[in-house]
Amino acid sequence: MKITGKVFDSEAYASTILRIVELVGRKLDQGHRFAIVVGGGRRAREYIELGRRLGIGEAFLDALGIEVSRVNALVMASILGPHAHLPIPRSVDDFLRAWASGKVVVLGGLQPGQSTNAVAAVVSELVGADLLINATDVSGVYDSDPKTNPGARLLKEVTVEELERLASRDAIPGSYELFDLVALEIVKRSKIPLVFLSVYDTENMARLLEGEDFVGTKVVYKTNNSLKLNDA
Amino acid sequence: MKITGKVFDSEAYASTILRIVELVGRKLDQGHRFAIVVGGGRRAREYIELGRRLGIGEAFLDALGIEVSRVNALVMASILGPHAHLPIPRSVDDFLRAWASGKVVVLGGLQPGQSTNAVAAVVSELVGADLLINATDVSGVYDSDPKTNPGARLLKEVTVEELERLASRDAIPGSYELFDLVALEIVKRSKIPLVFLSVYDTENMARLLEGEDFVGTKVVYKTNNSLKLNDA
Amino acid sequence: MKITGKVFDSEAYASTILRIVELVGRKLDQGHRFAIVVGGGRRAREYIELGRRLGIGEAFLDALGIEVSRVNALVMASILGPHAHLPIPRSVDDFLRAWASGKVVVLGGLQPGQSTNAVAAVVSELVGADLLINATDVSGVYDSDPKTNPGARLLKEVTVEELERLASRDAIPGSYELFDLVALEIVKRSKIPLVFLSVYDTENMARLLEGEDFVGTKVVYKTNNSLKLNDA
Amino acid sequence: MKITGKVFDSEAYASTILRIVELVGRKLDQGHRFAIVVGGGRRAREYIELGRRLGIGEAFLDALGIEVSRVNALVMASILGPHAHLPIPRSVDDFLRAWASGKVVVLGGLQPGQSTNAVAAVVSELVGADLLINATDVSGVYDSDPKTNPGARLLKEVTVEELERLASRDAIPGSYELFDLVALEIVKRSKIPLVFLSVYDTENMARLLEGEDFVGTKVVYKTNNSLKLNDA
Amino acid sequence: MKITGKVFDSEAYASTILRIVELVGRKLDQGHRFAIVVGGGRRAREYIELGRRLGIGEAFLDALGIEVSRVNALVMASILGPHAHLPIPRSVDDFLRAWASGKVVVLGGLQPGQSTNAVAAVVSELVGADLLINATDVSGVYDSDPKTNPGARLLKEVTVEELERLASRDAIPGSYELFDLVALEIVKRSKIPLVFLSVYDTENMARLLEGEDFVGTKVVYKTNNSLKLNDA
Amino acid sequence: MKITGKVFDSEAYASTILRIVELVGRKLDQGHRFAIVVGGGRRAREYIELGRRLGIGEAFLDALGIEVSRVNALVMASILGPHAHLPIPRSVDDFLRAWASGKVVVLGGLQPGQSTNAVAAVVSELVGADLLINATDVSGVYDSDPKTNPGARLLKEVTVEELERLASRDAIPGSYELFDLVALEIVKRSKIPLVFLSVYDTENMARLLEGEDFVGTKVVYKTNNSLKLNDA
Repeated sequence: MKITGKVFDSEAYASTILRIVELVGRKLDQGHRFAIVVGGGRRAREYIELGRRLGIGEAFLDALGIEVSRVNALVMASILGPHAHLPIPRSVDDFLRAWASGKVVVLGGLQPGQSTNAVAAVVSELVGADLLINATDVSGVYDSDPKTNPGARLLKEVTVEELERLASRDAIPGSYELFDLVALEIVKRSKIPLVFLSVYDTENMARLLEGEDFVGTKVVYKTNNSLKLNDA
Repeated sequence: MKITGKVFDSEAYASTILRIVELVGRKLDQGHRFAIVVGGGRRAREYIELGRRLGIGEAFLDALGIEVSRVNALVMASILGPHAHLPIPRSVDDFLRAWASGKVVVLGGLQPGQSTNAVAAVVSELVGADLLINATDVSGVYDSDPKTNPGARLLKEVTVEELERLASRDAIPGSYELFDLVALEIVKRSKIPLVFLSVYDTENMARLLEGEDFVGTKVVYKTNNSLKLNDA
Repeated sequence: MKITGKVFDSEAYASTILRIVELVGRKLDQGHRFAIVVGGGRRAREYIELGRRLGIGEAFLDALGIEVSRVNALVMASILGPHAHLPIPRSVDDFLRAWASGKVVVLGGLQPGQSTNAVAAVVSELVGADLLINATDVSGVYDSDPKTNPGARLLKEVTVEELERLASRDAIPGSYELFDLVALEIVKRSKIPLVFLSVYDTENMARLLEGEDFVGTKVVYKTNNSLKLNDA
Repeated sequence: MKITGKVFDSEAYASTILRIVELVGRKLDQGHRFAIVVGGGRRAREYIELGRRLGIGEAFLDALGIEVSRVNALVMASILGPHAHLPIPRSVDDFLRAWASGKVVVLGGLQPGQSTNAVAAVVSELVGADLLINATDVSGVYDSDPKTNPGARLLKEVTVEELERLASRDAIPGSYELFDLVALEIVKRSKIPLVFLSVYDTENMARLLEGEDFVGTKVVYKTNNSLKLNDA
Repeated sequence: MKITGKVFDSEAYASTILRIVELVGRKLDQGHRFAIVVGGGRRAREYIELGRRLGIGEAFLDALGIEVSRVNALVMASILGPHAHLPIPRSVDDFLRAWASGKVVVLGGLQPGQSTNAVAAVVSELVGADLLINATDVSGVYDSDPKTNPGARLLKEVTVEELERLASRDAIPGSYELFDLVALEIVKRSKIPLVFLSVYDTENMARLLEGEDFVGTKVVYKTNNSLKLNDA
Repeated sequence: MKITGKVFDSEAYASTILRIVELVGRKLDQGHRFAIVVGGGRRAREYIELGRRLGIGEAFLDALGIEVSRVNALVMASILGPHAHLPIPRSVDDFLRAWASGKVVVLGGLQPGQSTNAVAAVVSELVGADLLINATDVSGVYDSDPKTNPGARLLKEVTVEELERLASRDAIPGSYELFDLVALEIVKRSKIPLVFLSVYDTENMARLLEGEDFVGTKVVYKTNNSLKLNDA
């Protein structure tokens, strides 16, 4: 199981982060393992903007965002202390080595042209994850953009094909950030159990981790892949 | 400038490969630089098939294909001898280090869930390529699948948007291999001059490299990016 | 303890490999550790032949064989899944780091000019192996070449000196593959318990692993080093 | 020769940075080589503050600052493009490998408990630098703290012993940032020509690079080490 | 907890080293972890002398000493066998990876311009050490240099400020080797419990490790940090 | 071309080493490239002896010798300064990366169970060396052991087969150090021009490098491989 969260986007850093670390720690004690992919957030965007003003090309703008996501990953790994692997992996080979240590592996981006969502999907595949939690800044997948449409309805379940339609270019603008097509292709081919929820509601996340009812969206595949969290 | 070719797909290995190396050598003498991304070809597919029968998961099937593409890359780098960087890069960081040496960098795949086309696109962006040549097993982009439709017409030019439509899921089956959406998104955002031609017709490739007329398809961006090969 | 096998030489891949992985898994549960060195097999030879036709030098032909042996190693490691270390080690330093993780370490060749037998010997020395199993395509060491002489007799035991005589240049052609002089020098100086058997007879291998009677050849050193498998 | 600058401390990023890159580029054309060590600046301090609130220990707070300084280094290296080595070095071994490429090497911090000034001093020693330029947020070394004392007088020259006295704990608060004792010990033992000037006055920096009169402070060693910039 | 010792300075290598390894082994069985930093000793000084005669610069003389300290580290790690991590770390990133394996990590120096004492301090900070034992060639900190003054009195306790005064340049010559200012700054900011004792009296070291009375000097911080060895 | 020498065996370090570096420098100016493999010498033997007394196994005794040879390599690389690659390579991959930089690559041993002669042979093959100079403590290959037989005659030429006979176990004791069977097998298969001479007579070495008559032994292959030094 692993948590993907742009948890460093928000100003309310300290408390949310510490609470997530606490939740992870509790599940570690129960024998679960975690890989945590973190996004770059506001500072990544600031560096990318600066870089664009300096005439830096797209690949290196991405690289700047990746480096910032790794700084965020280092923050989370530092709080986890001896439970987390260090240094932060910089490639798939690095990730595999880190994972072999038995520790929680926190990472940011890996490659230009690839979102941290895609990283989370690849990493989930590599470790044979029981669950991929996408903790984002909205409560899950909506039938329209919740940021512009106050009447947008949160979907309890969504098929992967529906999600692909939402993520595709011609679909609702802004939904891109939820999960891009590359990431979806990977979760789809390996039928990785995938859940979207809000990073800010850590009590809700706790309920998910305990196998209880939670507010968010679960991705449904044709053959029935129920959440296997508690059988892991 | 760089060449992307699944040149190891064909049985006619020796002569085609040697001729491509010769072309590269000639342009090196003129001060051009090359990064060459090679695919996995038949042996990659054989290993993936074997792996599937052994119950290996998707990410590691990809990893097998990537490793085989790296063996192919090693073949080409070995022929280039002192002109090529060794060892074969295994990550973007590795690639950048190799590129800094001033040598030709030959590489295969980089990450599960990512095609060698996407690798070629990322690498082109990283080095600010003047031209990305996609040397494939057909003569370029057709208006329908040339393998099933004998009347398929080769397009001399194609807009990147048209290519996206062709590469998208609902489009002509088999065209996927030409260039996937991730790769397209990268060439599009950086307007990387991109050309498709047949890997088997090395005289044609020579004409392209000399700035002459060639058989193949050129990708067109809205703002006019003419080939800048000879101004480089 | 570790198994050295050119298990990918045979066409009967799937079942033999899976059965060996199963045997390894059973001994892991009993607290044993394994390093598994795999050869390059047929595909290595194919790449070396191709490379020779392309004019590639000996060191890089070896390098091609090594890379293919690493692809084979990746197949085996992928089946072992979380029990195996990834990525596949590329040097002694890499191997030691991988071994420190407590996982099964699967590897192929390490250096041009060095057989995978020599790698198995070095690795056995580094980890202080209780047993080095050389699972090959014949049932053990014969008094003459079993491939050309139908009356060749399988030796139940062979002194390391006798083995050296067999492996030396002036001895029976073809026996080279059993174990080369470099590998022998290492097992000899560290008196590493060494056994030869057929990779295809996995039931026989199971008997060896359980400390029972098996068909194969045991190398004998002057001072009595009995197999210490079950005391490990 | 190399430039050490906390050039990312200021808001006036874009123009100053671009102008420094331009100056470096001009000297590169004249055959000079550069290693550029950049500090972490404001964002480093923000991350360290955040980390402290999260209860992260001193070594990892330093590590956060180091990672941010590496993001800054990546910004500068990206502008330098093909003239700069990538990826950003993470250790002395990395630095040496990068330096061997013949490119400009841009780096941030290297180790917890070590300032970027100390990094600049070590790097200067490793490459046998002709000149270490410390481009900081004041115009050089003053006889008292220029930030609190409007009458502070800029010293044109300062002996290394005097600088040690200023940098030592009991000396003027705030001068610590100029150059710490570890850094001083290194420049002292290798008599590395060292100059302090303002990072914001790039015309002044240009004058220094051309061997002309400049506003700033030159460190004097007992045996006469004149600036050897133009004899290099 | 970790032991810093120039244990390879003495001729009486074998017995002292073996006894320290035995002590470490006993504490490992009780669940403690160790990082062991070893100095370069006599051979480091010999190489540095040779290098100086050959005209090698200060940074590389340091590098020679560091490499020798790593050979010493390899001796100690080899005796520890499967309990120790290999290979010997060459950077902070390397160290963190090694530490993540759960093994004892033995290391030598890390960077030119940095003492092995500073390495021990950084490493102690990184792992959140309960105790940093500085096993040196004198019995602890004296009120004057014990090597020149037979009446020098061993201090049972010393404040970190007093130690700084002793270590500073203007203080007693020879005391430098005890602990340099960089190392002190790190132990001070993280209040790392620090003890000085003789490397030759292993019975004394055993008493310290068991929490009993020992001959040596304990560093005292303003807020009371009692030794927490047995609560770890 | 490359020089293999146990140049650190002798007490007369400084002058011999400096003279060899001078010779290398002169040939560098003429456009030649060098890889220099150095042995471990006396200090390697001392560490191995110490390790044996401490009960360290054969593989790690080799590792100690290798590390010391790397310290010697660092001495030589430091004198070469900007002409040499740093850090010292630790694997074949490392060596290839270092070689790609265009610098002189100085290295020591690579793997347990492998002599530095074998390293020199592998490295010669990898770079397609024109000449492998084995600078040793005798003047070349003799018809009997020159250390015990005062009447031993220096051979001006020796066939590789004769050398194999001399190096084989049943041959003249002491000749082992000249060149072991593994090393011979590599030079033989690639017909690497190989010359033995004394490391102490640098004037003689200079004559060889200038293509003049020299005192030493040249290895002869069946097909005529004349020294190609001056045609390179």
